[in-house]
Amino acid sequence: MLHIIGLGLADEKDVSVKGLEVIRKAERVYLEAYTAVLLVDQAQLESYYGRPVILADREMVESKSDEILAGADEKDVAFLVVGDPFGATTHTDLALRCRQHEPPIPTRTLPNASILTAVGATGLSLYNFGQTVSMVFFTEDWMPSSFYDRVAENTGLGFHTLMLLDIKVKEPDLKALARGKIIYEPPRFMTVAQCAAQMLEVEEERKQGICSKEALAVGVARLGSDDQQIVAGTLEELAGADLGKPLHSLVLCGKKMHELEWEYVRGFAMDQKKFDDVWKQNYKA
Amino acid sequence: MLHIIGLGLADEKDVSVKGLEVIRKAERVYLEAYTAVLLVDQAQLESYYGRPVILADREMVESKSDEILAGADEKDVAFLVVGDPFGATTHTDLALRCRQHEPPIPTRTLPNASILTAVGATGLSLYNFGQTVSMVFFTEDWMPSSFYDRVAENTGLGFHTLMLLDIKVKEPDLKALARGKIIYEPPRFMTVAQCAAQMLEVEEERKQGICSKEALAVGVARLGSDDQQIVAGTLEELAGADLGKPLHSLVLCGKKMHELEWEYVRGFAMDQKKFDDVWKQNYKA
Repeated sequence: MLHIIGLGLADEKDVSVKGLEVIRKAERVYLEAYTAVLLVDQAQLESYYGRPVILADREMVESKSDEILAGADEKDVAFLVVGDPFGATTHTDLALRCRQHEPPIPTRTLPNASILTAVGATGLSLYNFGQTVSMVFFTEDWMPSSFYDRVAENTGLGFHTLMLLDIKVKEPDLKALARGKIIYEPPRFMTVAQCAAQMLEVEEERKQGICSKEALAVGVARLGSDDQQIVAGTLEELAGADLGKPLHSLVLCGKKMHELEWEYVRGFAMDQKKFDDVWKQNYKA
Repeated sequence: MLHIIGLGLADEKDVSVKGLEVIRKAERVYLEAYTAVLLVDQAQLESYYGRPVILADREMVESKSDEILAGADEKDVAFLVVGDPFGATTHTDLALRCRQHEPPIPTRTLPNASILTAVGATGLSLYNFGQTVSMVFFTEDWMPSSFYDRVAENTGLGFHTLMLLDIKVKEPDLKALARGKIIYEPPRFMTVAQCAAQMLEVEEERKQGICSKEALAVGVARLGSDDQQIVAGTLEELAGADLGKPLHSLVLCGKKMHELEWEYVRGFAMDQKKFDDVWKQNYKA
């Protein structure tokens, strides 16, 4: 059986008791390590599980899934995913391949905490969120602004938007590749400040008032860990905020934000007076 | 400190290792028992935790939070919530009261699996969901149809809608109450079939084609447990489906449903040919 096990968000002890029992008995243990990362490293996981952990990068999951699935029709293989297994489409792909395998490989999934609901720690109601939107790193010649349309769909209905921020954990260095060498760039994780700056940059172009300087937003970092950080402010303020180490996410507040949500969120404001002023002027129904 | 701890979805072993450590050391352990329930009972939790668990019903949480918070500025109190703590607004309320307490009570939250992301087990992409919508039990003289407007907002943008279904776990018997007696009705949990039937009932009235008989939907039951069940079909088919014991949820599919989502979901179809026909005629882009 292939056990697809969510690890939660922060460290090795966020796995469920049930998940840990499976991991400790499994024939092989893989860790999907390219859509998100835990705040602890592989060695710490291995030491806690008492088991070797095989890092599964994008190439292995997408092109060499046979290796992962080998023997899983008879033995237990654990495939670990940071957060909830369903956050990424990885899971559905793998499960489909299990169904199509000859003989079919049974699968079982153990859900766990996801940024999609942990973001409720901001005090924003999960019922008031629209679709989740991804933000990728802009480069000099690639500034994809389609996120703006997705956000606009949400704000049109008054919804909050959770922005999931890009991570680059095993990117080949393109210049080295051109010389025939495979060298990987150091890992990069988008910050709340970078995300806010990119939103403002696209607003400059589109000018629809979706991501304006005065738009209220909440930045979160390392949710679920002991040093999680939550900071609220205008997009302009957040573009200058430092929330420390990864992983970061950002929520753009929707106009439907209820007074009770505001009461809680304002406790995280960088400048509470300014936050309250903007709220009263542009948000309060 | 008040530790607000998510228990996940199915049984006593879905708690995180970190959460279990806190529970076993806490001065008192409360279980929020009115917005959702685990698939195991209080006795099983107590036996596994090795600790007594105090059931916190709606009245206690909303009107007697002083009892829960007593001494929490100095000692550790655990407040357990089925699923993810942020699924319900309970958490924000309690955390606000901790902030306002004299002296303030520090809080910490341990996230866990939520139906909001576990529903990805259907194969539907979490990125294609709009706002989450609640469905309450209709009665003879109360048939609140505002859910229809929320669903329409989602379907207008092509999104799936997760419907969270009503549970009644400690409802006073109104007839007995009128005679001055407090008697509680037996617990009731809305099924996928009841939800689908109510959606069709409101469609009859509104006639906007949002919840039509031929609309594709997916019913889920006991997600995250070993006997979880997933059934796909038209709303008319689901109105006759039996998914067994609680808890149930329903997803109404949006027109944005991608071919890859369909490929996975059709594996759960009650009538695969019919499912494919409806998909090809009304959904496939």
